[in-house]
Amino acid sequence: MTEKAKPLTDLAIANAAVMKPILEIAENAGIPEEAVEQYGRYKAKIDVNKLPVTQSFGKVVLVTATSPTPAGEGKSTVTVGLADALSRLGEKSMIALREPSLGPVMGMKGGAAGGGYAQVLPMEEINLHFNGDIHAITTANNALSALIDNHIHQGNTLGIDPRRITWKRALDMNDRALRHITIGLGGPTQGVPREDGFDITVASEIMAVFCLATSLPDLKERLSQMVIGYTYQKEAVTVRDLGVEGALTLLLKEAFKPNLVQTIEGTPALIHGGPFANIAHGCNSLMATNTARQLADIVVTEAGFGSDLGAEKFMDIKARKGGFAPDAVVVVTTIRALKMHGGVAKSDLGAENVQAVMDGIVNLEKHLETVRAFGVQPVVALNRFITDSSAELDYVLKWCKDKGVRAALTDVWGLGGEGGLDLAKQVLELIDEPNDFAPLYNVEQSVVEKITTIVQKVYGGKGIVLTDKARKDLIQIEQNGWDILPVCMAKTQYSFSDDPKKLGRPEDFTITIREIIPKLGAGFLVCLTGDIMTMPGLPKTPAALNMDIDEKGNAVGLM
Amino acid sequence: MTEKAKPLTDLAIANAAVMKPILEIAENAGIPEEAVEQYGRYKAKIDVNKLPVTQSFGKVVLVTATSPTPAGEGKSTVTVGLADALSRLGEKSMIALREPSLGPVMGMKGGAAGGGYAQVLPMEEINLHFNGDIHAITTANNALSALIDNHIHQGNTLGIDPRRITWKRALDMNDRALRHITIGLGGPTQGVPREDGFDITVASEIMAVFCLATSLPDLKERLSQMVIGYTYQKEAVTVRDLGVEGALTLLLKEAFKPNLVQTIEGTPALIHGGPFANIAHGCNSLMATNTARQLADIVVTEAGFGSDLGAEKFMDIKARKGGFAPDAVVVVTTIRALKMHGGVAKSDLGAENVQAVMDGIVNLEKHLETVRAFGVQPVVALNRFITDSSAELDYVLKWCKDKGVRAALTDVWGLGGEGGLDLAKQVLELIDEPNDFAPLYNVEQSVVEKITTIVQKVYGGKGIVLTDKARKDLIQIEQNGWDILPVCMAKTQYSFSDDPKKLGRPEDFTITIREIIPKLGAGFLVCLTGDIMTMPGLPKTPAALNMDIDEKGNAVGLM
Repeated sequence: MTEKAKPLTDLAIANAAVMKPILEIAENAGIPEEAVEQYGRYKAKIDVNKLPVTQSFGKVVLVTATSPTPAGEGKSTVTVGLADALSRLGEKSMIALREPSLGPVMGMKGGAAGGGYAQVLPMEEINLHFNGDIHAITTANNALSALIDNHIHQGNTLGIDPRRITWKRALDMNDRALRHITIGLGGPTQGVPREDGFDITVASEIMAVFCLATSLPDLKERLSQMVIGYTYQKEAVTVRDLGVEGALTLLLKEAFKPNLVQTIEGTPALIHGGPFANIAHGCNSLMATNTARQLADIVVTEAGFGSDLGAEKFMDIKARKGGFAPDAVVVVTTIRALKMHGGVAKSDLGAENVQAVMDGIVNLEKHLETVRAFGVQPVVALNRFITDSSAELDYVLKWCKDKGVRAALTDVWGLGGEGGLDLAKQVLELIDEPNDFAPLYNVEQSVVEKITTIVQKVYGGKGIVLTDKARKDLIQIEQNGWDILPVCMAKTQYSFSDDPKKLGRPEDFTITIREIIPKLGAGFLVCLTGDIMTMPGLPKTPAALNMDIDEKGNAVGLM
Repeated sequence: MTEKAKPLTDLAIANAAVMKPILEIAENAGIPEEAVEQYGRYKAKIDVNKLPVTQSFGKVVLVTATSPTPAGEGKSTVTVGLADALSRLGEKSMIALREPSLGPVMGMKGGAAGGGYAQVLPMEEINLHFNGDIHAITTANNALSALIDNHIHQGNTLGIDPRRITWKRALDMNDRALRHITIGLGGPTQGVPREDGFDITVASEIMAVFCLATSLPDLKERLSQMVIGYTYQKEAVTVRDLGVEGALTLLLKEAFKPNLVQTIEGTPALIHGGPFANIAHGCNSLMATNTARQLADIVVTEAGFGSDLGAEKFMDIKARKGGFAPDAVVVVTTIRALKMHGGVAKSDLGAENVQAVMDGIVNLEKHLETVRAFGVQPVVALNRFITDSSAELDYVLKWCKDKGVRAALTDVWGLGGEGGLDLAKQVLELIDEPNDFAPLYNVEQSVVEKITTIVQKVYGGKGIVLTDKARKDLIQIEQNGWDILPVCMAKTQYSFSDDPKKLGRPEDFTITIREIIPKLGAGFLVCLTGDIMTMPGLPKTPAALNMDIDEKGNAVGLM
């Protein structure tokens, strides 16, 4: 597969691949048959209570990337290819990934299951509904909304102020028309009128709770702590006050089991939970990561977008809660992406332009600094594309060498695990070295200190500005004693700053905090910056327009 | 199990039952292993393209009931128990049922998988999310909504009038606050403001299309024909105009495979599709019924609520489209229900009251007349309850005998199939007799004639009244040539009339048609009567408040 005269689509490659029965994948991964609940022939849910008990846990390799551009970086592809390469080297490796949201699948992005010969399968089912987990979360979210509105309609004994309900409805959809709505119209039998809105499900607190809970009882406890709004006396109202945490847990209990699938090369992958990294915490479930650590010697996992978003949250939120440290961090980048950070337009990426690579490499530089700020060493995965010139590739590899950073060329899209062997070898060296991982801030610091730390050390900004709304939020958070929680930044993925147009390595900027939302179930404070939206919109020509089935009933148009 | 000193809950009985592996159920039903896609150990989806071809099709037994009361009739329970009894008599039988909607599960009703020793299993998973089919329909429905609003927002080249969009969003939830909403608020980047509302998913046209389509290409064709609204020139806009029928079909393609489960006694059951019978057509999918007819000699199926709703639609819509006839119709009733129709309050149902049974039996009488109006013979299943007196039971059985109607006492809740043997024997006699089945009206009749026929022959009313809105709808329907479609009445289930308080056998009433909505994909015209709502609300004390998981992670509080 070194010749790519007529490149196949990801879907065509996925459909041509021969999958192993999922029971065989499970057996190879050390999962006993009684723990496997098959969903079709090639997907399964794992009952973790039926896994063998172990005291040794695998090492964790986190894959992140430079700031995303329309050129594409291939982070999921490298994650899959790296694990396949580790398998080829005889390592017992396993992948832990997020589930794709239907919003981007129908909107912009197509699928999210890797690409080329480094994919997880069955690609089509992973991208569409995937065992119903996200639908279960949507359902629990909206059941809570219906129960809140019904409580108010039926007499409102808790005294919930309809103007101060912070719990929003959710759909796994890009649907801007649902951002700001009014509900309960039509007269006294149709509910109590109030303002509301829908977030995309992957931004909902239940998704975050789902991904950070370590057991069903923990899930229930966290759900009970979620704040849904305030009374007329401005007292917080929680799910526990409504008495519905049991019903919500029941709705989630099957979804809460991690999903097992396989790569094209047969490496086992757990795909579970899918919060976005720009508006949520951006990592797959702790259940999946912990299960993979229990079963494999090396777990390759991914966090969303660049190191400023998913990786920061992986370190400061997920690893802190999970009590583990990443043993290595892979930073994926491409020549094309660096050229865009160097100011080249997407249409001009085909032409060699070493100067643009030199100009854009500051973005990579900052991401590497960010990784090191957590006391962990990075490896650069320079993910090859057919238009890359030797001069461009050589420049980046030499730049890394000069900086004392490990780097490897990868071609996992075209070659699968074979194209990630050099990266795998460097990762194996790195994970045997000691590391000084620590989250970037202590939770005891003030909220402003915590945010400022992230802005300065991760984004490279000067400091922060709070809007009046954010100041009011902060007072309320401090009065309730919620200021001891970590923070979860909601920021554009395209720039280190809160302005998506500032590519490369912006400097001298401040970050404006528009609103701070306490998420007590998830256990963090969401800080909204810039224009970031918790419900995306569809583009002018949505990917849905190209989707279809063929005469045999197979999927067409998934990318 | 004749002693019921301490009756167990349905959930406790379900949990105590020992299920067979679904592959064994499939094998016994004649389904080859390659057609079985397991979803866990006890559920499967069936790939109908991999079933053996047959030219002989099983007989169809339809189970309906007297008008529902809070006393309960046990229609699903009798459906399951009858099939189990047929199996005990050596008949190759199979069940075709609807999937439960989460709305009533969370709201009022608990589950919908039969009861006692006549249940389909796994009860808990059938009641919650069940293989994700309804979620897939919700998703397709709301993807279409998002694509419509995005089309308008991005320039509206089709010229869709935002005031005349008839396509509504949907959730599988009882949520009255979403009946009337305004969306797209917040300024020019947040979509185009307009009025909208959510229906419960089981009332959505996609659910109806899903249940009436006979193949994936047919599903796609029907989806493409759905009208979503009108242009500024008042021309109908369809899904085909938007070009998204392929994407919607892709979202539904896995859900479209019927689901195989088993009864407590091991009879195979296909559970697939779940439109309500009061606001939609109330029958499981044609795919499931046809698959069951292909595999078994006798298919026991159920249509929602009384014969005035589900059964009428089964005959006039589903059987007409499917090209088959029901060979027998079972009308389920209970002494308690008849007493309520005779004017007894729910709290007084425990005491013997033969007079009330005599007063209430007119409801049964009308349902039997309705069944016979279709040229099919009924069998009464008098479903025993522990408080029934011999005098009450004897009265009903003698009344049936005097009327020349077959009748059988059933106790399937307590005894499973054993309690349905007499009913099964009578059904077996009946299906060997010739029958003169025909739908009640010809589609070529005018819309008013078709509705009037149903009101007079099925409900026993005098005639109909059209509101001004309905008259306007009718003119538009006639102008577009859509008046040749069958009608799907949306009417309260509690009364033959459109007033839920008129129990028994109301007379001299007219039915008010409030609105007529063309559903070109489903292929019928929905006629809204009285106060019927396409989005239910939650009661003061929702069933959700009692739901939980126990320390082992098992469901608690599902009824």
